[in-house]
Amino acid sequence: MFSAEDKASVLIEALPYIQKFYGKTIVVKYGGNAMVSDTLKEKVMEDIALLKYVGVRPVIIHGGGPEITGFLKKVGKQTSFVSGLRVTDEETVEIAEMVLDGKVNSEIVNLLNHRGVKAVGISGKDAGLIRAKKKLATVYDGDDAKKVDIGYVGEVEEVDTGLLDDLIDHDYIPVIAPIGVDEEGASYNINADYVAAEIAGALHAEKLLLLTDIEGVYKDYHDKDTFISTLHQAEAREYIKTGIIEGGMIPKIEACLKALDAGAVKAHIIDGRLAHSILLEVLTPQGIGTQVVR
Amino acid sequence: MFSAEDKASVLIEALPYIQKFYGKTIVVKYGGNAMVSDTLKEKVMEDIALLKYVGVRPVIIHGGGPEITGFLKKVGKQTSFVSGLRVTDEETVEIAEMVLDGKVNSEIVNLLNHRGVKAVGISGKDAGLIRAKKKLATVYDGDDAKKVDIGYVGEVEEVDTGLLDDLIDHDYIPVIAPIGVDEEGASYNINADYVAAEIAGALHAEKLLLLTDIEGVYKDYHDKDTFISTLHQAEAREYIKTGIIEGGMIPKIEACLKALDAGAVKAHIIDGRLAHSILLEVLTPQGIGTQVVR
Amino acid sequence: MFSAEDKASVLIEALPYIQKFYGKTIVVKYGGNAMVSDTLKEKVMEDIALLKYVGVRPVIIHGGGPEITGFLKKVGKQTSFVSGLRVTDEETVEIAEMVLDGKVNSEIVNLLNHRGVKAVGISGKDAGLIRAKKKLATVYDGDDAKKVDIGYVGEVEEVDTGLLDDLIDHDYIPVIAPIGVDEEGASYNINADYVAAEIAGALHAEKLLLLTDIEGVYKDYHDKDTFISTLHQAEAREYIKTGIIEGGMIPKIEACLKALDAGAVKAHIIDGRLAHSILLEVLTPQGIGTQVVR
Amino acid sequence: MFSAEDKASVLIEALPYIQKFYGKTIVVKYGGNAMVSDTLKEKVMEDIALLKYVGVRPVIIHGGGPEITGFLKKVGKQTSFVSGLRVTDEETVEIAEMVLDGKVNSEIVNLLNHRGVKAVGISGKDAGLIRAKKKLATVYDGDDAKKVDIGYVGEVEEVDTGLLDDLIDHDYIPVIAPIGVDEEGASYNINADYVAAEIAGALHAEKLLLLTDIEGVYKDYHDKDTFISTLHQAEAREYIKTGIIEGGMIPKIEACLKALDAGAVKAHIIDGRLAHSILLEVLTPQGIGTQVVR
Amino acid sequence: MFSAEDKASVLIEALPYIQKFYGKTIVVKYGGNAMVSDTLKEKVMEDIALLKYVGVRPVIIHGGGPEITGFLKKVGKQTSFVSGLRVTDEETVEIAEMVLDGKVNSEIVNLLNHRGVKAVGISGKDAGLIRAKKKLATVYDGDDAKKVDIGYVGEVEEVDTGLLDDLIDHDYIPVIAPIGVDEEGASYNINADYVAAEIAGALHAEKLLLLTDIEGVYKDYHDKDTFISTLHQAEAREYIKTGIIEGGMIPKIEACLKALDAGAVKAHIIDGRLAHSILLEVLTPQGIGTQVVR
Amino acid sequence: MFSAEDKASVLIEALPYIQKFYGKTIVVKYGGNAMVSDTLKEKVMEDIALLKYVGVRPVIIHGGGPEITGFLKKVGKQTSFVSGLRVTDEETVEIAEMVLDGKVNSEIVNLLNHRGVKAVGISGKDAGLIRAKKKLATVYDGDDAKKVDIGYVGEVEEVDTGLLDDLIDHDYIPVIAPIGVDEEGASYNINADYVAAEIAGALHAEKLLLLTDIEGVYKDYHDKDTFISTLHQAEAREYIKTGIIEGGMIPKIEACLKALDAGAVKAHIIDGRLAHSILLEVLTPQGIGTQVVR
Repeated sequence: MFSAEDKASVLIEALPYIQKFYGKTIVVKYGGNAMVSDTLKEKVMEDIALLKYVGVRPVIIHGGGPEITGFLKKVGKQTSFVSGLRVTDEETVEIAEMVLDGKVNSEIVNLLNHRGVKAVGISGKDAGLIRAKKKLATVYDGDDAKKVDIGYVGEVEEVDTGLLDDLIDHDYIPVIAPIGVDEEGASYNINADYVAAEIAGALHAEKLLLLTDIEGVYKDYHDKDTFISTLHQAEAREYIKTGIIEGGMIPKIEACLKALDAGAVKAHIIDGRLAHSILLEVLTPQGIGTQVVR
Repeated sequence: MFSAEDKASVLIEALPYIQKFYGKTIVVKYGGNAMVSDTLKEKVMEDIALLKYVGVRPVIIHGGGPEITGFLKKVGKQTSFVSGLRVTDEETVEIAEMVLDGKVNSEIVNLLNHRGVKAVGISGKDAGLIRAKKKLATVYDGDDAKKVDIGYVGEVEEVDTGLLDDLIDHDYIPVIAPIGVDEEGASYNINADYVAAEIAGALHAEKLLLLTDIEGVYKDYHDKDTFISTLHQAEAREYIKTGIIEGGMIPKIEACLKALDAGAVKAHIIDGRLAHSILLEVLTPQGIGTQVVR
Repeated sequence: MFSAEDKASVLIEALPYIQKFYGKTIVVKYGGNAMVSDTLKEKVMEDIALLKYVGVRPVIIHGGGPEITGFLKKVGKQTSFVSGLRVTDEETVEIAEMVLDGKVNSEIVNLLNHRGVKAVGISGKDAGLIRAKKKLATVYDGDDAKKVDIGYVGEVEEVDTGLLDDLIDHDYIPVIAPIGVDEEGASYNINADYVAAEIAGALHAEKLLLLTDIEGVYKDYHDKDTFISTLHQAEAREYIKTGIIEGGMIPKIEACLKALDAGAVKAHIIDGRLAHSILLEVLTPQGIGTQVVR
Repeated sequence: MFSAEDKASVLIEALPYIQKFYGKTIVVKYGGNAMVSDTLKEKVMEDIALLKYVGVRPVIIHGGGPEITGFLKKVGKQTSFVSGLRVTDEETVEIAEMVLDGKVNSEIVNLLNHRGVKAVGISGKDAGLIRAKKKLATVYDGDDAKKVDIGYVGEVEEVDTGLLDDLIDHDYIPVIAPIGVDEEGASYNINADYVAAEIAGALHAEKLLLLTDIEGVYKDYHDKDTFISTLHQAEAREYIKTGIIEGGMIPKIEACLKALDAGAVKAHIIDGRLAHSILLEVLTPQGIGTQVVR
Repeated sequence: MFSAEDKASVLIEALPYIQKFYGKTIVVKYGGNAMVSDTLKEKVMEDIALLKYVGVRPVIIHGGGPEITGFLKKVGKQTSFVSGLRVTDEETVEIAEMVLDGKVNSEIVNLLNHRGVKAVGISGKDAGLIRAKKKLATVYDGDDAKKVDIGYVGEVEEVDTGLLDDLIDHDYIPVIAPIGVDEEGASYNINADYVAAEIAGALHAEKLLLLTDIEGVYKDYHDKDTFISTLHQAEAREYIKTGIIEGGMIPKIEACLKALDAGAVKAHIIDGRLAHSILLEVLTPQGIGTQVVR
Repeated sequence: MFSAEDKASVLIEALPYIQKFYGKTIVVKYGGNAMVSDTLKEKVMEDIALLKYVGVRPVIIHGGGPEITGFLKKVGKQTSFVSGLRVTDEETVEIAEMVLDGKVNSEIVNLLNHRGVKAVGISGKDAGLIRAKKKLATVYDGDDAKKVDIGYVGEVEEVDTGLLDDLIDHDYIPVIAPIGVDEEGASYNINADYVAAEIAGALHAEKLLLLTDIEGVYKDYHDKDTFISTLHQAEAREYIKTGIIEGGMIPKIEACLKALDAGAVKAHIIDGRLAHSILLEVLTPQGIGTQVVR
């Protein structure tokens, strides 16, 4: 399809990016459509393996909400949500962990290993990676905000990167299920975007890539010309306050801000529906999606 | 309860054993009643943590048959067995993996970490640890033996200890779910005793400890005085042939023989129903159960 | 004597202590009755070997006053003391060094090695471990304090832990004779408690254990109920000033304070007349004697 | 020019090759037109830098015959050849070394460093890399072959890869001028193809790439359809004997055979006149030129 | 010639110096008569090899002005000087580099290797060792100072010691030609004294030894009794200002001051015309020449 | 006394020897007059320190017979000898150890450290260095040879060089007292020549130097012209058999043969009465004494 010379020019074009990210850690939050479509899944795995082969150190955090919902249905367990958070009793968190750690995670590991890299699936429980604490849901009753206990939904209290460092140093790709554990040993299901943000920060990652089902941030969603390629921290906070960033985009941007605060260099919201979006973002001059920078 | 002097004498008595096993790898197959009873579970975890603290390098392989059966029932899936092996279609192996890797494994990891060691849960998929192949069931029709395909039940084809070596060298305790993967990436549920045997062999472990629900081997089960403390390989093979070892004891002894053939130094069948059986076996002069030696 | 279960429970009880002191340095000042009685000597050696086997890094400093006195008598040399310090001419220090380094030290090394550890006997001369300077005796004439030169009695000027670090890193147990050397190369006999304190400090030891012939500190020696388990630095200094701590206990407590000042974490006065006192102190919840803490 | 998707597919296509050659040594003999044309020179440098960035360990050996001839002319020195070898008196070898080491070599180093890699120029003199001995020219007088001394033209006697290993291990790209030194310290100019072959062998290189001014080997040069992609050692020797391989191609093929004999895995004759020929050979499925294999 | 006892006493006398400079870096600027005379050249090489063998880490920077002039004459190129600096067009710098890197440098490397050490010839281009920038000549027209562009004459902008550190750590002796390269990749000829000074500083060398054709500094050159053995920085600057140090001595002293400013411990001007002057300076109590100290 | 040029020529003359023995182990048996005379003692210490500074790895074994005899007299203990071996009861071996380890050894350590090296005094007890067994004396009654038990006189059964390797690798000079220990922990006094021979062998030392009170071996002691510089093993054995080597020279030569058999490269008998004999032997072309070679 391409002439030899064409291929060479594409490879050469990638050279400065390969050079720039050699030996750097890039944390990928994998979720959304890119995880649902088998075709896209293939391409994400190819991208991650390629990054590894050109010297990047990828770390994957995955979600799995739809798969959990599907499995809960299978066992005849009702799911209810409070302010977008799943009410999670002990049986629910047990099933969530089984689905995330025993199914979604191990499938990603398997697909990566099949491409010749060495992936290792872990959860936040392994070697105390993620210390969690309970996260209360916020419910609004008119103007009143109330905190409601919805069970084993957690947030990250502390990240101990010891195991990640050891795995990365030995050339493994860690694939992380977003489960944490509290001081008493209870398990919590945690939002994967935030886990990815905390881990990207703790590893001082060069990039956090959030694979989402949108193209990025617009000043006005009705006008495609208002796409924002780069957002500075202050701007991002301002846009949230003034409502330019709203709805489901808020937690995504907050995860980006958290990653920067915690130590990551850059955070990107990229469109996981686009084939090879990771590769395009990291290894070509295009750059896609919206990046949040200091 | 004990005087200070009493305590000292117990600790001192353990000294030569601590010395002997310092830096040595001991593989524990954890299963049976020791995994069902919460009290016994506590004691196994204490034993493993203690071994780690006195310089032993423990590696855990666990089973989980009853938990799988329970979960299959929960999702309304019928289980049938052929010659003692579970007929395992794609849905069944998926659920088996979820239960083993996402529930049983992570619970063990959690309990160990709670005791201050650093456990890491892995399955045979991680970094290509266990390459599996399909295992056919043998069915007897009169004198005729027939091989029957019962789905995703596997046996170990090859063990790549790279990840285990790296984890052990960095002072982690690997906790392994008995799942393997074939060349095409399909998952298989494998008998945990055999996985433990193969891994003990590949790691050239000092000991394989199979926690079982029996005291060990008797020449005559009706006569408690015929207990066998030590079995040489040749004897063991002879006893199987002559029917002295029979029934459920056969696969246990075969796992021991496999471990020795593959490189382990000794293999023990010990009674997991006895509290602290691991500790008693490894750190006291008592020695319990039946050991199989070269 | 003990049931298997009893033994397990003692070993398990030791677990948190083994865990706590794994890889930590514990400096033992060995002297007094524990060195005179052959039975006690055995038990001290067992304790030290056990500590080594469970991952502690022991360092031994020994005294030897009575043996020196005995040998001086043997060669017909009179010993006199000024304010509790031996008047030490050149011949005396030569004999002291021979006894300490060539007899007491090598016997301890021998006993330890016999238990399967690797002990190495050194003195403060080796690789410049202890730089000493002359210590003058203080003599009181009524209210007047006078400094008197009593020869080759020294105090620690500087500790160079290079050799100790190298030996400890290679898993040896250093056994140290309390001899130092000044800039001109002259040898000095130094009080072993102080040597132990300085070395515990320089190594940032987790504990200094002073084996003594008393149970510890009492507020009132006539009332056994006034035993003090824990003394804070400030308290200790206060008690010396107010006379609650008096006589032979003063230099012991001062050694403890010196160790803390120089960098050790804790210092303990324990009763060497009690069998396995080291083990009891380090590996059981009893805790014996008086500890001095920050 | 290319769509994002196109670029991704080219990069993905390169993945298995990147994976295959990761950490492997590839020795490039750089010469001919690829060294004369400034455009081709640029592309060779880009290719080598890219290889380095994707984890290959490149080693460069360069020639410089035309530049030497040019400079000899400049200083008014006549050049004569015997059987294709330059008659090389002391002044000539001195000038050859100046041109090779002080001009050609340092220019290559400079161009590579400009692309962000760390190249280090060395000659066979550095740290005793190439021990040389005199090579006599063979002159035919009718059927008689006579050996003629033509001065400081050498051949490789021994390669000491110590310096190369140290440089490669520290991520430098060695750029080697084909100068050797004999036991007495006299300098020799050596054919760069043979130097490359010997070094590829001594380093057990994965590939030797000889950049030439031809496309490769044909069974019949007049029939483009007779191109030979792969030559086995035995075939190659046979073709030389039978005259299928003739003229200037003989020494090229002999260098390939020498490399294999000395320990290299494969040797390739590739067309340096084609832009990015190195990249195409190493990182694409095309594969160009003729490879000589075991 | 010497009795055994005499020899021993000389070797013993060197002991404290060997001890003092063990593992220390000594930078030698090699030039002047010591480079012209074959006898002196031999002795310099012996001295450097001896230093290496007694544990010193020598680094050599060489000049080559006379050889460059000779070669320019050979190719019929006129040389002109402005304020003592050679006017250096592109052809001139190319020839200078060839002579320095391809002739002078490789001869020194060869002579050192012949003495059993491992020398490696490099220039400032290798691995980006010396980043240069253009140096303008200063021309005085009456009292007016004017800056004149004389081509590719450079000064050191930055030294990257990475390659030197790696070579020195692997026991090589780096031999450096005073060529630098600017951001665009253009080559510059740089005064070797200054290159030596900058490198001595960047390496925090124990000593910089400038081999010159004078004995050192005199307060009054007509009175041999006014020889100055030690000059403090402030004095040196004062003497330049007051004209005590004048003419060709000024740049030498300035190089010494530059070395100290950049991080070297001491800088020495020693008489390269004296056989074994390096050895005498470093390994005997004589000490020769003038040293500049903080 | 010597001109600068003279000094340089002596240092240069030593160069090939420094080069040859760089990083090599040389074992010195120190005893005889060289230990009695304070002047000679000084010079031996200077020689050893110098060897260390030029990269040699010296290991010292010392004797101490006269000092032991002196001290036994001091404590009123009679000494008797059987066939040249001291009858050694428990009290005698205790005193021997005190003198050797606590006095002679620590004095050597002290003198070496004073010259800026790092010496560490050890005995054969440390870390199990020398496993000894009882050596019986041979008594001749006419033609009958009888074995007589003379107490704690030992011979080397096994050498464990672990501690020596660790010390040497960390740049310490081990100084070894010739005391060994048997399986039961009993101490033995061992002939220092033999200890040195065994250790030189076990360390595969480049040289064993036995400092003696004779010049070396003569074919005829009355004719100075019959001095033997080099003895091959076979010759040495022949000369002992034929009586050319006789009396006190026999055990010296046997120690040399033992060293070669056990793995040392060369063994030398040199005259310790000659100042700086070690230095002359190792670092000058003279070579003194008699060497025994393969």
